[in-house]
Amino acid sequence: MNLICTGTIGIDTIETPGNGRREELLGGSVVYFAAAASFYAPTRLVAAVGDDCPAEFLDTIKSFKGVDTAGLEVRKGSKTFRWGGKYMDDMDHRETLFTELGVLEEAPPRIPEAFKSSEFAFLANSHPAVQLDMRDQLDSPRLVVADTMDLWINIAKDDLTKVLGRVDGLVLNFDEAELFTGKRNPVTAGRHLLELGPRFVVIKKGEHGCILVHRDGLTALPAYPTEQVIDPTGAGDSFAGGLMGWLASCGAEDPGSFESVREALAHGTVVASFNVESFSLDRLKSITAADLHARFADYASMIRVG
Amino acid sequence: MNLICTGTIGIDTIETPGNGRREELLGGSVVYFAAAASFYAPTRLVAAVGDDCPAEFLDTIKSFKGVDTAGLEVRKGSKTFRWGGKYMDDMDHRETLFTELGVLEEAPPRIPEAFKSSEFAFLANSHPAVQLDMRDQLDSPRLVVADTMDLWINIAKDDLTKVLGRVDGLVLNFDEAELFTGKRNPVTAGRHLLELGPRFVVIKKGEHGCILVHRDGLTALPAYPTEQVIDPTGAGDSFAGGLMGWLASCGAEDPGSFESVREALAHGTVVASFNVESFSLDRLKSITAADLHARFADYASMIRVG
Repeated sequence: MNLICTGTIGIDTIETPGNGRREELLGGSVVYFAAAASFYAPTRLVAAVGDDCPAEFLDTIKSFKGVDTAGLEVRKGSKTFRWGGKYMDDMDHRETLFTELGVLEEAPPRIPEAFKSSEFAFLANSHPAVQLDMRDQLDSPRLVVADTMDLWINIAKDDLTKVLGRVDGLVLNFDEAELFTGKRNPVTAGRHLLELGPRFVVIKKGEHGCILVHRDGLTALPAYPTEQVIDPTGAGDSFAGGLMGWLASCGAEDPGSFESVREALAHGTVVASFNVESFSLDRLKSITAADLHARFADYASMIRVG
Repeated sequence: MNLICTGTIGIDTIETPGNGRREELLGGSVVYFAAAASFYAPTRLVAAVGDDCPAEFLDTIKSFKGVDTAGLEVRKGSKTFRWGGKYMDDMDHRETLFTELGVLEEAPPRIPEAFKSSEFAFLANSHPAVQLDMRDQLDSPRLVVADTMDLWINIAKDDLTKVLGRVDGLVLNFDEAELFTGKRNPVTAGRHLLELGPRFVVIKKGEHGCILVHRDGLTALPAYPTEQVIDPTGAGDSFAGGLMGWLASCGAEDPGSFESVREALAHGTVVASFNVESFSLDRLKSITAADLHARFADYASMIRVG
């Protein structure tokens, strides 16, 4: 099954408490998502960059097997999105050092005709009006999941509410679920969000794992325990990539069912655990499907009880 | 197998953000522990109270099946330990409103002769010198686990280090593991603590579950997801009660093995999830072994992947 992802490509500057500062890193939601998803399913990428985007960044994206970059627009005279972030001591919180929107202030990229029949779609974090536009360009996808962030909850909640009425699933952070709903308990917050339309909500808790609130069930999964946390950037997007990639490849009659999404979350968890082990895409570039399968088996057995 | 627990009985005052304030509640580590453990194994309790302790508190303790109170000292003219705590909005953090040590400032209770052959022992949170004394009164237990708190890490770290050399396992909170070791990553902190003697360390993360760092393996388990969090007091002790109760009853040749402790953590997680659903022992008093088994089966299946 084909999977499409719309989102950003960025040039990142990252500061970490233990591993120093790195500049001119390949980043952006769609990049982390596609790199992770590509281990599972052919992934179509829709994003725009300026002509300042280093050629090797595009080469890296293309190096992930099965990633189709026909929807990647390189715009002459435009600037690529740049973001700088600094992680706090706990590595689970960060502050934004700077944001240069560049191409993100222009018209959003168009979805190529050949991509419009994609069966699975992930609308990575962007203005919910853009997400709605992307959603509407798709013919009749089987499963659409959106991500969001605190900014849109604060300034574009109405549009975001419309997005919730047009997707099967929503992925967001613990704090964002509380910000949106005013409910601190993640199960209560998730149930509240379900009332706005989606069939399931995934609440991400970083190193503490995630909670799935689905119309047909509830679960919590831990993060894969690791000592090796170099850079958490892209953890949420690679998590979503594993989640959606697995759903697109699993062959389930109902890929949005509680059981399918629950299993998919475990795959997302495992891919994300690799991603945080280095800066940028360095770790995801270095692993094989066999590495992923081995860690998945380890993860599944470590949480198996009863 | 017989299980012994040494610790405190208290009269608690609890303030919660959503469910008001309650006074004169039965509390204390040994009470929550024994109530939880009693679902699995005969549990011997060692603690002291003053003669101001309400008779119905003692009746409640005795009402838990298989709890042996021969080690419960009611001291004439002494005052029962009193503690007041206030929970913050997130229910995972609390501040102490007052502490009246009372009987805890006197000599610790003695372990009855008949209890000294106990095979499983839990040294609930108290001054590590008292924990060491309790440990030394036991003949040759098969498995000893201790709890601790930030206070002892701050003022009695040497004694606590001695305790670590005399127990099989340590249970402590996430923040305490960092305070003790200076390592924020729980796996790193756990490995550091293993070097001081124990075979395993359980790092409790409240609503985010727990991490097990064992000489023979590593795991993380989520908390049971629930909307019903009325009062988290005693969650850690009931968690330890389920953990130790299950280990004492499981019949494993090596109850301290990675596999045994991992399974036991899941039982602790489930008992603790009931405990937080009401003030004091109210919820644990109301459930049956069948309720516990049903939720355990639910928990095991919700986290089963692969």
